Amino acid sequence: MKIALIGLGQVGRSFLRILAENRAFYQEKLGTKLDIAVAADFHHMLHSDDGMDPQRLLYYKEKGDIWGTGYAEVEREALFDMDFDVLVDLMPATSDGIRARDLYLETFKRSRDVVTACKSGLANFWPEIMSSSVSSGRKIRYEATVAGGVPFFSFMQKCLRSSAITKIVGQVNSAANYVLLSIAKGDTFDHSIEEAGKLGILEANYHFDTLGYDSAWKTVITANSVFGSSLRAGDIVFEGVEGMNPKTADLENTRLLAEIELQNGELAASSKLKKLDPSDPLASLKGKGLGFTVYMKGRAPLTVLEFNDGPTETATAVINDLLLL
Amino acid sequence: MKIALIGLGQVGRSFLRILAENRAFYQEKLGTKLDIAVAADFHHMLHSDDGMDPQRLLYYKEKGDIWGTGYAEVEREALFDMDFDVLVDLMPATSDGIRARDLYLETFKRSRDVVTACKSGLANFWPEIMSSSVSSGRKIRYEATVAGGVPFFSFMQKCLRSSAITKIVGQVNSAANYVLLSIAKGDTFDHSIEEAGKLGILEANYHFDTLGYDSAWKTVITANSVFGSSLRAGDIVFEGVEGMNPKTADLENTRLLAEIELQNGELAASSKLKKLDPSDPLASLKGKGLGFTVYMKGRAPLTVLEFNDGPTETATAVINDLLLL
Repeated sequence: MKIALIGLGQVGRSFLRILAENRAFYQEKLGTKLDIAVAADFHHMLHSDDGMDPQRLLYYKEKGDIWGTGYAEVEREALFDMDFDVLVDLMPATSDGIRARDLYLETFKRSRDVVTACKSGLANFWPEIMSSSVSSGRKIRYEATVAGGVPFFSFMQKCLRSSAITKIVGQVNSAANYVLLSIAKGDTFDHSIEEAGKLGILEANYHFDTLGYDSAWKTVITANSVFGSSLRAGDIVFEGVEGMNPKTADLENTRLLAEIELQNGELAASSKLKKLDPSDPLASLKGKGLGFTVYMKGRAPLTVLEFNDGPTETATAVINDLLLL
Repeated sequence: MKIALIGLGQVGRSFLRILAENRAFYQEKLGTKLDIAVAADFHHMLHSDDGMDPQRLLYYKEKGDIWGTGYAEVEREALFDMDFDVLVDLMPATSDGIRARDLYLETFKRSRDVVTACKSGLANFWPEIMSSSVSSGRKIRYEATVAGGVPFFSFMQKCLRSSAITKIVGQVNSAANYVLLSIAKGDTFDHSIEEAGKLGILEANYHFDTLGYDSAWKTVITANSVFGSSLRAGDIVFEGVEGMNPKTADLENTRLLAEIELQNGELAASSKLKKLDPSDPLASLKGKGLGFTVYMKGRAPLTVLEFNDGPTETATAVINDLLLL
């Protein structure tokens, strides 16, 4: 499988690191060889017909410039003239999602599949992207767009086929909840942002996290994927964690949660602050944790939890998608 | 998809109930029609070329005798002369597993697939059953053999492809843990067994649960499935919850847990009582809960929890397997 890797931020570099460490494992256990045919950051787009060494790309990216790898430079316009099977979009979020939409539609048109960790396109243009995917017969997988390394969509698609889903509640953004729990412990907003940055759990523009956009976008993608709706980013009620001046006691067990519920055929989707019962398994998640609970018709709910999410975990979700293609 | 349903105990009846309620949902959402071509309990094996009404089977089973449905009776020896695609084994566990082994080998030979909730065959004859499945090109799925309605194997197979598994810890048997937690609260063994029976979480022979066999068998199946080993029921260290006379305080956060770990290429598998740290997500599971934590190389562990397992949940796992075939 030949990959065009677009975006070498925290998740992109984790992707390279995992690939460098696990390529033999993937090939041996799964019979899949993952080759990087194209790699691009904001400055350069490089290409090699023989596949690029992920370790070498990582080394030069961390030194500051992937151009140092010596791989051939390609004009961005020539991307689809290169030989690859899957476009992997690990670029940062933008508020309008136009870059991502245009890129995916072009990718489908040029007969390639998409795996993305970027929420913006899907949260703003779900109907357009999905109908283009269907009409072109190309696939898009987006596990890493919601809840980092927690396997949400593959869980819904593969593990819960026998049950009608009635409700989903998820802690899907770690940055906002990290800030929330830090403030609950008496920390300042600014200092908690600084710490979250060190952990690699902030969007490039952290206001996307703290104003609640990130969690709202994830809510939209989740609703559309699970319940077949056609919501767009602007369609749901959401709130964030900036500018709060709460009594810290009120924040205990409070989380920013995506909540999507189907009641009498009506879908209600929101991303809001909510106080959890202490016995709720989601309440066990601390600042770096992500997870969700799925409620189903006629059977007990299931919860999936990850106590420590970061770029590495998100990158594993991207690779799982590649291995499911 | 035409099903031969063998076993109409608690899980079998839940299977019929779910099928009666959800057939339209499966057909509409998933494009799969699930028809019961053969249904059997200990007394009768019935057959209909047009598919049997699950509601009618359930009604007469609960009245006491499925013969009342009026469907044609078949000799057990003629099972494979009937027209069906998948054998669904919901029979109770036996300690030797010979019945299940013989049935699955015959099923593969007669070009049908197997979905099973019965642990005995796989725990005792994993190598024989899997090699027969491979050589015949037929499938076997066994989600419901471990941890009831918690999707364990589909989670491992579909959601975690990108990571090398290093350790699994699971609360995979609810009956033993129900008894354990009841005793911790001061209840007697006999009374807790009575209550567990009412909840439908006991094996037909409850000593399989309380002496630890059930959890041990599940440990064997988990180890073989995830780590590619060829363990048999007798190969692992296990303990149960019968005949204990503990100080109840010692039992707080103690659970009967399957634990399988790969260290330096060596696999260690056991099913033993273990005191959990209170912050361990598995410690949040009470008597009817099931769940597991998966540890992976180079990334954060994931936990899947279900607070209330019972025959309905186990039956949904069986149906999920059918829908994954």
